[in-house]
Amino acid sequence: MDELSLIAAIRGMSTARRRDRGLIAGIGDDCAIVRPRDGEDLLLTTDFVIEDVHFRRRTHTAADVGWKALARGLSDIAAMGGEARYALVSLALPEWAGARYVRGLYGGMNELAGRHGVAIIGGDVARSGQLTLDVCVIGGVPRGKALRRSGARTGDVIHVSGALGHAAASGYRERPEPRLELGRKLRGKATACMDLSDGLALDLHRLCVESKVSAELDGVLPSAPGATLEQALGGGEDYELLCTLPVGVRAPVGFTRIGVVRAGRPGEVRFAGMKLGRRGWDPFR
Amino acid sequence: MDELSLIAAIRGMSTARRRDRGLIAGIGDDCAIVRPRDGEDLLLTTDFVIEDVHFRRRTHTAADVGWKALARGLSDIAAMGGEARYALVSLALPEWAGARYVRGLYGGMNELAGRHGVAIIGGDVARSGQLTLDVCVIGGVPRGKALRRSGARTGDVIHVSGALGHAAASGYRERPEPRLELGRKLRGKATACMDLSDGLALDLHRLCVESKVSAELDGVLPSAPGATLEQALGGGEDYELLCTLPVGVRAPVGFTRIGVVRAGRPGEVRFAGMKLGRRGWDPFR
Repeated sequence: MDELSLIAAIRGMSTARRRDRGLIAGIGDDCAIVRPRDGEDLLLTTDFVIEDVHFRRRTHTAADVGWKALARGLSDIAAMGGEARYALVSLALPEWAGARYVRGLYGGMNELAGRHGVAIIGGDVARSGQLTLDVCVIGGVPRGKALRRSGARTGDVIHVSGALGHAAASGYRERPEPRLELGRKLRGKATACMDLSDGLALDLHRLCVESKVSAELDGVLPSAPGATLEQALGGGEDYELLCTLPVGVRAPVGFTRIGVVRAGRPGEVRFAGMKLGRRGWDPFR
Repeated sequence: MDELSLIAAIRGMSTARRRDRGLIAGIGDDCAIVRPRDGEDLLLTTDFVIEDVHFRRRTHTAADVGWKALARGLSDIAAMGGEARYALVSLALPEWAGARYVRGLYGGMNELAGRHGVAIIGGDVARSGQLTLDVCVIGGVPRGKALRRSGARTGDVIHVSGALGHAAASGYRERPEPRLELGRKLRGKATACMDLSDGLALDLHRLCVESKVSAELDGVLPSAPGATLEQALGGGEDYELLCTLPVGVRAPVGFTRIGVVRAGRPGEVRFAGMKLGRRGWDPFR
């Protein structure tokens, strides 16, 4: 398979929705061309999925890997309350990853892309010793309505979607479900929001740093069946939404209260009266 | 250096221009937020730069690598006649690449970004065995005015900017200069345009395929000092612009005529009467 044939195959597998009037040009030119919608801000995010860092060939099929590579970016769009629209897929392939594996990757990406109306409109291909995907996702949100990490205020109530630690409890084998619908339901309600990629303790610390507040967790957490407390607090890749709501604002169905925002040392997170460390997944430590 | 410190350092080094009123949020949230300009289409492109594929540590400094990683995307924006605005930088670092190396990478990217008014507004960091950058560049172009590969018509004159084979003749050590100003001068004039990343023969073949035409090169090419004919025809990474102009339309200063567009077998490229193969840099062959 030479590069021209590979790109032709990828073009065939990519889900450029012909009905999308905002898509002027997808794969096949130097850039993709997109016409923005009136009254919208653009959301831009990019995430790696790398062999032996984010997945293992023994435990993840090609389709699992493709799904996950796209899911990470979709979850970031969910965290801002946006709609996901387009993706650029950069794919660095080792010798062992042939045409069949690439079809598997695109199969997984297309399955998830189809559910959320996302079109794959570009990317890059290269050789590498280690399978590497980098997926850039482009979304839209009504102008000025994006949910930020920085808006949490003292007294706000902290909520989380779903159950905590489910990815860790599954051995990180499950396919993450980006919470796009739940994110949009938080628009105009939540004062701050982010997705949980590296574990509650570390991610809540980050949200508190950006908002210059501290957090006090209730003693009880909505943990997933089979998850330990350590996994609920520090297990990464849950891709649930973490948000803060002013007192009296009801959280959408699917969220559970887990604590309150406090003044105090920015970034500090307390659980059952104790200060939590920055536990969570950190490849640089 | 843990991940939070690394991201804090990168945030400090990133050139989010405070004066840019379209930039609502840069590094530090789940997504970057950008407000599109009225009457513009968006251009989106992404390119890898990978150790031992696109550069070698023995011959390229960290700043050279950073420069090149951004230059590839800027050249794609140039090829569409656009203005480059923002970049997302995904950085996968092996153990050997410490804080000093990362500063070098950002130094090179910032130098080039500064020249073209580009702001680095997001990205991702990860661990990897092989240093990998994937840079997504976002540009703008007046609505409907992007230069495409697909518009070349029989009889058009083929032009190229600069000299061919200069990258190959330098041993691929020079820093590529994206031709953004030249690209904008082609708006409303060129019928087709692309940048030369993989060598004239292969890239002109691609342009002809997209335009469903063939090409006949003149016998003489503007080759760089020291470049062989093989390098002028097949040397990659020149990042010059290749374009077609209708007969009678004068090319901007900086371009040289190299041939004419013919009907005939789509994609065929002839030089001095002979059919050229798809020579050029193809890592998948």
